[in-house]
Amino acid sequence: MKQPYFPCENLSVKDGVLQFAGQSTAALAAQYGTPLYLLDEARIRQNCRVYLDAFKAHFPAGSLPHYASKANACKAIYRLMTEEGMGVDVVSPGEIFTAKSAGFDLARAFFHGNNKTDVDIAFAMDCGVGCFVVDNEEELCAVEREAAARGRTQNVILRLTPGIDTHTYAAVNTGKVDSKFGAAIETGQAEALTKSALQKDHIALLGFHCHIGSQVFEEDVFERAAVIMIAFMAQMKKAYDFTTQLLNLGGGYGVPYVEADGSIDIPAKIATLAGVINAACAEGGIPVPRIAMEPGRSIVADAGLTLYTVGAVKRIPGYKNYVSIDGGMADNPRFALYKSSYTCFAANRMDEEPDMEASLVGRCCESGDIIQERVPFPSSVGRGDLVAVCTTGAYNYAMASNYNRLCRPATVMLGENGNYVAVRRETFEDLTALDA
Amino acid sequence: MKQPYFPCENLSVKDGVLQFAGQSTAALAAQYGTPLYLLDEARIRQNCRVYLDAFKAHFPAGSLPHYASKANACKAIYRLMTEEGMGVDVVSPGEIFTAKSAGFDLARAFFHGNNKTDVDIAFAMDCGVGCFVVDNEEELCAVEREAAARGRTQNVILRLTPGIDTHTYAAVNTGKVDSKFGAAIETGQAEALTKSALQKDHIALLGFHCHIGSQVFEEDVFERAAVIMIAFMAQMKKAYDFTTQLLNLGGGYGVPYVEADGSIDIPAKIATLAGVINAACAEGGIPVPRIAMEPGRSIVADAGLTLYTVGAVKRIPGYKNYVSIDGGMADNPRFALYKSSYTCFAANRMDEEPDMEASLVGRCCESGDIIQERVPFPSSVGRGDLVAVCTTGAYNYAMASNYNRLCRPATVMLGENGNYVAVRRETFEDLTALDA
Repeated sequence: MKQPYFPCENLSVKDGVLQFAGQSTAALAAQYGTPLYLLDEARIRQNCRVYLDAFKAHFPAGSLPHYASKANACKAIYRLMTEEGMGVDVVSPGEIFTAKSAGFDLARAFFHGNNKTDVDIAFAMDCGVGCFVVDNEEELCAVEREAAARGRTQNVILRLTPGIDTHTYAAVNTGKVDSKFGAAIETGQAEALTKSALQKDHIALLGFHCHIGSQVFEEDVFERAAVIMIAFMAQMKKAYDFTTQLLNLGGGYGVPYVEADGSIDIPAKIATLAGVINAACAEGGIPVPRIAMEPGRSIVADAGLTLYTVGAVKRIPGYKNYVSIDGGMADNPRFALYKSSYTCFAANRMDEEPDMEASLVGRCCESGDIIQERVPFPSSVGRGDLVAVCTTGAYNYAMASNYNRLCRPATVMLGENGNYVAVRRETFEDLTALDA
Repeated sequence: MKQPYFPCENLSVKDGVLQFAGQSTAALAAQYGTPLYLLDEARIRQNCRVYLDAFKAHFPAGSLPHYASKANACKAIYRLMTEEGMGVDVVSPGEIFTAKSAGFDLARAFFHGNNKTDVDIAFAMDCGVGCFVVDNEEELCAVEREAAARGRTQNVILRLTPGIDTHTYAAVNTGKVDSKFGAAIETGQAEALTKSALQKDHIALLGFHCHIGSQVFEEDVFERAAVIMIAFMAQMKKAYDFTTQLLNLGGGYGVPYVEADGSIDIPAKIATLAGVINAACAEGGIPVPRIAMEPGRSIVADAGLTLYTVGAVKRIPGYKNYVSIDGGMADNPRFALYKSSYTCFAANRMDEEPDMEASLVGRCCESGDIIQERVPFPSSVGRGDLVAVCTTGAYNYAMASNYNRLCRPATVMLGENGNYVAVRRETFEDLTALDA
């Protein structure tokens, strides 16, 4: 039998059962029930350290990777980020509140978003968020107003669009000129926003931010973005004598979901990127600023796996086969939204040849409730069997809904000092707790 | 100024402000905050009565429309369904629990789903769900087992796929032979499932179910489905002397979201459908069964409206314009999922000419967070203005997530005896309540 493709080294097989982080998925499903999100603590820590070590080796002192917590925000993960010495990026007061509740020091947080309300801005300031990533002029004025009201100065970087098209899925491609995010360099709006920020009394402008997209595998796209940003920084130095202290290049390194994705050597990429940054700054006659990046998916995606139980296997002769599971688009809407690829297994039948293909579908009353098409399964698969969907640590729990009034699954952390429930399973009482 | 298109008669304008159900959207936003889901109680009742009256006029005694509660399931709506004498369709134990908590008599419920777990089946039986819509053989065996264990007989109808392609969006087109739902007539699997059901000791087979899709405007698709189903019923009468007592034709009548959608005269459609059913039964030599239908969208969609506040307006010269609001794909993922159309307004600027076009986008950190493209707005629109998105009563709250750790909006019922909060707004504490 051919060895299956595993998207991460934390997957293996023992006695025909898929093991995740060295533990039996069958035993975990029996103990905690399905559907179930699993997180591998050691892998999360290891993914952080790849960035932390590369930053230390290649970027100026004070440079720091910031976990993009929108990928998966719960108190357990913010605690790990504290322990690993990571910064975080937050995109809402809900994330700020969660990070704060977990004891995360928000001085090491960037606050993102194309539409921060006045209430959000006040809340973030009162929680001590270190740096606002200001998206637009209305926000800049609101930040100035709230900072003035508090008699303080707020650290700010400006979100710019460098005009780079990453050829990823449109929904996650954010660096183009016509993005809803930031101010475009090409149109002169980035310069106007910079000029405006420099004139504000309660704004301390530290530098600039760009984010060119998500799930990016292209060779040189971060380098191209950095060169464009640094040219702009040199221009701001000349025009306004403004020295950029901090350049935040956002996130976006791709993570392998399926064999065809390939993989990225992040330390090598960062070494190359550092070389390009140093050269561009030298050429522009400006000092190399502190560098921030915002990995989200590459911190948590392959540290996650979802377990489901099969309820029905449908064979429609001459058409197709279906394997139906006890979760679906409510806990993982990424296929429905983006046609995302996943590696999937009949986790308790790993020693059987996958001799049939089936659509892996959820239990929602909707035809679009698909986890993955054309999944190889052993034809013995049936009600009660276990299905594992790999690489679900990012944008699964984070995007989960109660569609069809389904309870969201628990998240169990497979911890270095034992397993624990990081987010407990929703109950029916939770579903109706807000109802009159 | 041209009169704007209103998708429903519960919309009007007074003093430049959009009115919904006769109330000022500006006053409602000020009182309850945004983002905010509104529901028009009178319109929900009226939509129910359209079906109830048409059923009474055209179908045999005992026929009943069942509200497909996956469109919007909260206790307030189940209470309205009780008062109006509707049945309901439920798709999960969460919906069953919510209906029961609201005092809905589950004897008038159909329990749907392509993957009911043993636990679901036991729960539904113990809650007294009147009729299971059995999807497949595994489920049939599980229902038989649970009914036997309780020493009772469970009423059942079988979900069949009549093999009809409705040419709607693939994700909501469910009547095709290769659907994940039900047993196909064409392949002989429907007959096999019928035969199996008739042989079970604790199953009382009442009849059959089909659902051909969602948001259907085509002329004769329900009639075609009915004819196919009735031909199958006649065949089952001949082969097994089985008399169908109940035919459930599912839901799917389309609702106008934008002017191009047109609209459906539901009483006229039901009158025509009844004629086709009567003729087909006469031709098949079988009695006309009780008829059920399962409208969801056409009960609640146009009874709903969402209010947002504008945070930023971005004009990218030579590219496009953006109006950013304080909600987005987290409270309404339908554009992200299906490219759904909506009619949208600057609700406090209804007397200004809409002289610019903009993408109406949300606050999530994702380019795909779009509510609608090419929305006409007055160019005066800016931070603090109010945006109304019409026809959001179905599949908005139901599909809402906490993506970006955003709190889900409140639902306010504009009641005949005053307004009340049907579902309260989520708090930050709610977001972290399940976290360790």
